[in-house]
Amino acid sequence: MSKIYPVILCGGSGTRLWPKSRADKPKPFLPLLGRKSLFEQTLERSANRQTFAAPTIVTGQKHLDLVEAQLSAPDAAIIVEPVGKNTAPAIALAAMRLPSDAVMLVCPSDHYIKDTNAFVAAAEMASSLAEENWLVAFGIEATQPETGYGYIKRGPEMGGGMQVDRFVEKPDLATAIGFLEDGSYSWNGGIFCFRAGLFLEELERHRPEMVAHLREAVDQAREDGRCVYPDAGHFGAIDGDSIDYAVMETTERAAMVPVTMGWSDIGNWAALHEASDSDDHGNVQHGKAELIDCSNVLVHSDGPRISAIGIKDAIIVADGDEILVTSSKGAQRVGTLQGAKSQ
Amino acid sequence: MSKIYPVILCGGSGTRLWPKSRADKPKPFLPLLGRKSLFEQTLERSANRQTFAAPTIVTGQKHLDLVEAQLSAPDAAIIVEPVGKNTAPAIALAAMRLPSDAVMLVCPSDHYIKDTNAFVAAAEMASSLAEENWLVAFGIEATQPETGYGYIKRGPEMGGGMQVDRFVEKPDLATAIGFLEDGSYSWNGGIFCFRAGLFLEELERHRPEMVAHLREAVDQAREDGRCVYPDAGHFGAIDGDSIDYAVMETTERAAMVPVTMGWSDIGNWAALHEASDSDDHGNVQHGKAELIDCSNVLVHSDGPRISAIGIKDAIIVADGDEILVTSSKGAQRVGTLQGAKSQ
Repeated sequence: MSKIYPVILCGGSGTRLWPKSRADKPKPFLPLLGRKSLFEQTLERSANRQTFAAPTIVTGQKHLDLVEAQLSAPDAAIIVEPVGKNTAPAIALAAMRLPSDAVMLVCPSDHYIKDTNAFVAAAEMASSLAEENWLVAFGIEATQPETGYGYIKRGPEMGGGMQVDRFVEKPDLATAIGFLEDGSYSWNGGIFCFRAGLFLEELERHRPEMVAHLREAVDQAREDGRCVYPDAGHFGAIDGDSIDYAVMETTERAAMVPVTMGWSDIGNWAALHEASDSDDHGNVQHGKAELIDCSNVLVHSDGPRISAIGIKDAIIVADGDEILVTSSKGAQRVGTLQGAKSQ
Repeated sequence: MSKIYPVILCGGSGTRLWPKSRADKPKPFLPLLGRKSLFEQTLERSANRQTFAAPTIVTGQKHLDLVEAQLSAPDAAIIVEPVGKNTAPAIALAAMRLPSDAVMLVCPSDHYIKDTNAFVAAAEMASSLAEENWLVAFGIEATQPETGYGYIKRGPEMGGGMQVDRFVEKPDLATAIGFLEDGSYSWNGGIFCFRAGLFLEELERHRPEMVAHLREAVDQAREDGRCVYPDAGHFGAIDGDSIDYAVMETTERAAMVPVTMGWSDIGNWAALHEASDSDDHGNVQHGKAELIDCSNVLVHSDGPRISAIGIKDAIIVADGDEILVTSSKGAQRVGTLQGAKSQ
């Protein structure tokens, strides 16, 4: 089997992990779980050069310094988007820079994956399907009725994976409960695997004008060391779209590989709490803290000591000049806070 | 009626309002309720020179700077204790510096009193009993079965007040509930009124060796402007004791005046929360804060913004490099925290 080309997407910022995640230091670059950032962990998962080729990072100008600072792989290439246009153009930029028959593995840089072996095994299975000209999504085992994720309904099995019956948008709670009971739905974790050429063919079939702009942007790109800067005029003219809408939901060649790998999108503080190793009382400490008679409490401090007594089911975060205290449920509404909105 | 001599006790530090109250900035000197400190508010309550004579402050060397900084009364005298020996010696020092027939009103400087008029009315009533040679305690209306206070059982009425049947140590909860139902018990708020000479006579009757040391300490005192420094050797030799033990519980001349004045000893964060004006949801904000879907929450910040979502019945305090998050019940255990103990 030929090597897999990791393509790591470092875009967006998000406010759901405010005040830790801020506009100038977004989620992928924070050491939220363990001592390394989610971006660094993403790189490490595909660091074995027996299996993986050198990675391609797609990021924006404002995160370039963070990427450079945390990028240990000396053979990495960086594509610097002039502006964010969602995932389809970002992935296409990487596809155009790679050999047409290269098998790409597209990975978000802000997710947590506990079990690297399971990830690599799934990548290898996806790669073998990709070599047979499938566009493969990772189908992550659904363990609860999440309404914040897209779902994939599995179709007929083939070659260690299965065809995709259909992709489903974020469901309401009743629908999500139904999916879980049904058992034939997986979460769509935004991890994809396909040949670069096939992806571009499929994108061109459905979004020819996007591909035309992309070709111009790449033809007129400026190179500077390991960085590539697509032309801003042509790239800026693109009508942005996600890979899900632009390709995966429309192609006839969608497949998936099922995977159980301790995945979390760390979508909010409660999700981070859940993904963290906790003590016997469900407490998690990151930074200086003392907890007395507390249970199911996450404390996360970048400096001050957090002392808590008699608190249950809460998240307490100190970062710079901001302190957040919320319930697990309230964690979903952190983005509505003045502090999160005004940064 | 002759004027009343306020004697204001500024001792101790306490850890129960940590991290706001710390060894170097203890509770009396903090603006916990309103913009003025409890010490400043205590001075203001007896600022009317028609009713009150110039105040005497009894404090220790380590709080002298804070006293001087917050002491607006130009006619005040300050007695600087070489070391803390509890309330009986502190009050005796003031008594020895005042005319023998002066009516003293002894006031802690770390309590909150909402209704100044009721306080002054009670002081006047206590003063008239003091002139008839009673040692008068303020009997504060008991509104809940507090186990943290001493109680006074009321005896026969006389001249607007009543004799004291007996003083009672901090009771257990069942006893406190019984007191509340009984209706003849008041809280002992540590506010006392008596003639200076009578107090010293009674103290000498019960603790002659203490008074002997005190007389030497005062005779050999050093004066510096408005400050008096009793001799450290003699004062240090005293076996310290509270006014309650040394005098009030043993004298035959104990009386009390009943008073309802919105009193609180602000003994912990939950007590401060209760004494504060709250919004419709029971929330209190001091400093920069945003509360969403919170109820019965006290936030108190000296700088950082505190954002809270979906929190109920909690106290959140930020002060310097310390953050405290506790339930109302947990507030009683703040003194056990490492931060509170290690300052």
